[in-house]
Amino acid sequence: MRVHIIGTGLLGASLGLALTGRGHTVTLEDTSPTAQQLAADLGAGRPYTAGEPIDPDIVVVGTPPDVAAAVIAQALRDYPRATVTDVASIKTRLLETVTDLVTADELDRYIGCHPMAGREKSGAISARPDLFIARPWVICSDADTPTHRLREVEEMAEATGASVTHLDPGIHDAAVAKVSHVPQVVSSLVASQLRHAPLDEVALAGQGLRDVTRIAASEPGLWTQILAGNAEEVRAVLVALRTELDTVIEALELGPGSTGAIARTIAHGNEGHDRIPGKHGQAPTAYAVVTVLIPDTPGTLASLFKDIGDLGINVEDFRMDHAPGRRLGIVDVSVMPANASDLETGLQSLGWRIPESAIEKEGTT
Amino acid sequence: MRVHIIGTGLLGASLGLALTGRGHTVTLEDTSPTAQQLAADLGAGRPYTAGEPIDPDIVVVGTPPDVAAAVIAQALRDYPRATVTDVASIKTRLLETVTDLVTADELDRYIGCHPMAGREKSGAISARPDLFIARPWVICSDADTPTHRLREVEEMAEATGASVTHLDPGIHDAAVAKVSHVPQVVSSLVASQLRHAPLDEVALAGQGLRDVTRIAASEPGLWTQILAGNAEEVRAVLVALRTELDTVIEALELGPGSTGAIARTIAHGNEGHDRIPGKHGQAPTAYAVVTVLIPDTPGTLASLFKDIGDLGINVEDFRMDHAPGRRLGIVDVSVMPANASDLETGLQSLGWRIPESAIEKEGTT
Repeated sequence: MRVHIIGTGLLGASLGLALTGRGHTVTLEDTSPTAQQLAADLGAGRPYTAGEPIDPDIVVVGTPPDVAAAVIAQALRDYPRATVTDVASIKTRLLETVTDLVTADELDRYIGCHPMAGREKSGAISARPDLFIARPWVICSDADTPTHRLREVEEMAEATGASVTHLDPGIHDAAVAKVSHVPQVVSSLVASQLRHAPLDEVALAGQGLRDVTRIAASEPGLWTQILAGNAEEVRAVLVALRTELDTVIEALELGPGSTGAIARTIAHGNEGHDRIPGKHGQAPTAYAVVTVLIPDTPGTLASLFKDIGDLGINVEDFRMDHAPGRRLGIVDVSVMPANASDLETGLQSLGWRIPESAIEKEGTT
Repeated sequence: MRVHIIGTGLLGASLGLALTGRGHTVTLEDTSPTAQQLAADLGAGRPYTAGEPIDPDIVVVGTPPDVAAAVIAQALRDYPRATVTDVASIKTRLLETVTDLVTADELDRYIGCHPMAGREKSGAISARPDLFIARPWVICSDADTPTHRLREVEEMAEATGASVTHLDPGIHDAAVAKVSHVPQVVSSLVASQLRHAPLDEVALAGQGLRDVTRIAASEPGLWTQILAGNAEEVRAVLVALRTELDTVIEALELGPGSTGAIARTIAHGNEGHDRIPGKHGQAPTAYAVVTVLIPDTPGTLASLFKDIGDLGINVEDFRMDHAPGRRLGIVDVSVMPANASDLETGLQSLGWRIPESAIEKEGTT
């Protein structure tokens, strides 16, 4: 497949890395020669020279959302044979603008996409070929979309390891408002409250705060475009959230019935949390976690995982944390629940330190 | 040290596990015989029999916050020689109530504490001896606190692996409002917006949403007590947060200057985020992360970590994620920045798959 990528930021460059890795031919174009060269140097593809004749099967527009429509329209004119797609995170408004800019025939060659992958860091320098693996790749096609073009885009998405899903643009925008845009706003608001907090107060930060505010490190420029581009949907969810926030704030005046109102909010959070699928995109993950305490020295992990391998048990996930200055590593090994007790007894018999009651459901951790 | 723990929930039982593991003598008391026996069975200590004569050096009250004051007062009377402490997450109001209930002499034997450790799961069944390792253990003493009693409590806290910090109760409560209580409320509010979202929308959830809403799984009963107990401080922060939220909601009407307002909110979030210390409680963590793609089969991790060990490089932290159905594991290995390029070249020369540009600063990830 010959793919031409216009806009070699995090997503464009990561797509290039993924596709070249799968043997596809990728040309890279960016208004910034530096960004274009960087993506090429990273192995995302071959730099495109202005005016050179290319005949791509697919053109992927990876530019910032605010210029995406114009670039898509131009690409539809420049490459009359190609299917043109994009990776912008808002679809309705973009489709409307593109529709105004192009002919009906050209519009048939445009298929809007949104690979739901990203990180707090932006730019080609943060690109990685595995960025899309196991992440949803939303394709917004309609009845007029020619099947062979739809297949092309599906194949490209699948080549990156992403899981393809088809959604109506409006449903997509409502969904990302809830699962992506509002969480971003709220994470930023929580972090913002720490701007003037004395350091000995912030020093009490725990994992909860770090998790809630991780995405507060995201880039203002890009997120302003995303939020403005999905303003209506985001605003609707934020207004609903504010209503519940008002209830909590009022309840904290501790008048009659206040504790009930507070408890209800936390309970509502439980309900919503239970609807979130697990990290692999299916039902919420429920691995069993076995915790092992290990001396924090080179090689110890090797023997731990050798022993786990010898027990014939596959590790689904794991995490390690440290007790600084204590040369003690705490390893949480996630396995299929059926294997948990075998793993625990097996490791114990091999002399590994396993704290009492170390087995638990991962569910919410 | 002889420690008597009243209230054998997550914190009480975890403390028991940590202290018995260090050779201290622990007796366990709980109004629920089942909870008391469970904690004992897990190895947290010896069950206390009502009326049996014990003479503890320290009594730790691990009951729910709403009964803590009464239990502390009773313990000060029952054990006239002992230092009495607690693990409640709100200190000002508790100290006030205790002060009303006891004599000045008794009050001198009370030292309020807040070990900043916990999880979404509660109860002795979730207890673990490593719960406090490397977490802040706040001690709220005052000028009247006898030094030897203060030392006793410090020694007990240090025995759990926690990092002791001394704070005025008021400062503590203001701090936890910002770093713990408000993040909990907001995480619940974000999750709550998903209660009625169609599953194909929630299916688009990414790591950002999962991080922001992880603590939304927390227990309503306990958190109602915590939030009500620190109502004034929490309310103040929530009101400030609401003011910024109002700005965003208004900006999303996309009037003049709106994008500036949105960008400012995200930028404020960046500022606040940068003040949060790293997971080990010191300066924000900045390990270098090397990503390795491995076949997802038993034993592979073993050889990976054996090779890392052979390279003489210590692993500071690591994470693994999976590409479901693809038998591919993605391992992020965090090392000291100085070791990153050695690790990358070393592993590559040993034939491990390392994506281009895999080295990055961990900072916000």
